[in-house]
Amino acid sequence: MARGRRKGSPDTRAHVLAAARTLFAGSGFGGTSIRAIAAEAGVDPALVHHYFGTKADLFLAAVQFPVDPRALLAPVVAAGAEGAGERLLRTFLSVWDDPDYREDLIAAARLALDPQGATLMKDGFLPVVIEPVGVALGLDRPRLRMTLVATQMLGLIMGRYLLRIEPVASLETEVVVATYAPTLQRYLTGPIPLDSEGTGEDISTSDEKRD
Amino acid sequence: MARGRRKGSPDTRAHVLAAARTLFAGSGFGGTSIRAIAAEAGVDPALVHHYFGTKADLFLAAVQFPVDPRALLAPVVAAGAEGAGERLLRTFLSVWDDPDYREDLIAAARLALDPQGATLMKDGFLPVVIEPVGVALGLDRPRLRMTLVATQMLGLIMGRYLLRIEPVASLETEVVVATYAPTLQRYLTGPIPLDSEGTGEDISTSDEKRD
Repeated sequence: MARGRRKGSPDTRAHVLAAARTLFAGSGFGGTSIRAIAAEAGVDPALVHHYFGTKADLFLAAVQFPVDPRALLAPVVAAGAEGAGERLLRTFLSVWDDPDYREDLIAAARLALDPQGATLMKDGFLPVVIEPVGVALGLDRPRLRMTLVATQMLGLIMGRYLLRIEPVASLETEVVVATYAPTLQRYLTGPIPLDSEGTGEDISTSDEKRD
Repeated sequence: MARGRRKGSPDTRAHVLAAARTLFAGSGFGGTSIRAIAAEAGVDPALVHHYFGTKADLFLAAVQFPVDPRALLAPVVAAGAEGAGERLLRTFLSVWDDPDYREDLIAAARLALDPQGATLMKDGFLPVVIEPVGVALGLDRPRLRMTLVATQMLGLIMGRYLLRIEPVASLETEVVVATYAPTLQRYLTGPIPLDSEGTGEDISTSDEKRD
């Protein structure tokens, strides 16, 4: 803030984003508050809210997501659980197979899957983007089911985009959809047994820190 | 070397393994010869064969796999394609869920999935371990089908073992089997369409360099 810079200058924004990345990566989404990010960046919490919106908005800005996945997923969710596996997959492919987005998405995935940054995926992207889809679709056990979906999507990201394993990397969209949509739909709405200790039951995530 | 050790001393073996890791990671399994590894380690190729066996054996030693996956997979393959999804998954879980192996497997997975080492997974583990299973099971398009299987297994490794995303990380074996075995079986023997350019057809991997 020295040298007469204004509060919302590019430098201030960059400081906030850097602080957010550090704290989200270290403590996860639930364990990080806007207040702590503001303190780390040396600015007022109100400024962070003013420039970045909610904590979820700031998270998505910090991981440098090229599109807002919540906006993309809104129509997927609006149409209900039936066929949601295919709609989810088509939405996913529409951005990942778009050369304009590909590189930024790969960079975000590498960041999220890095051992140091793994909590960005686990405690950030899942609660901010993935789990709300299951809740909005009205699934039973939304957290379990969306996590199952995430395991197949993560593997598809790894195989098709990061490792570029052939022939999966070059498969046409319609083949990818015919192959993976039934898997996703079964994870969303098919019979998934409960285990004896109820591990698969959704337990409320009480570790969320509110500002 | 010292204390009357012969050419295959721990130091020599370590040099060969280090050279193998470097070359496999840089050029993949197909693009790396025993001859090149021997040259890099400054030893005779015959010594490498003598101490490590085939190039595939050396690859598995270099990535420090705690068990030989080919031996584990032999009974999976011997029983044929029907039910192979479930047998494959149970074999996988029997090692990954074993505390004696877990840490070494996680280390091997991190190595194989590291951007620098990604070719170990793509051009090493797939041709050495994964694809031969599909061929031995007599699948049509074994490479495509085993790559589909690999995308789900990779995602399961990421979610259950590396990122430890709940509730998938703590699900009981039988729930994991009931959830994922049908997916794997469909990828192995279910209807997977051909695409218009035949991308899903298996093209021989002619980039293999033989010694």
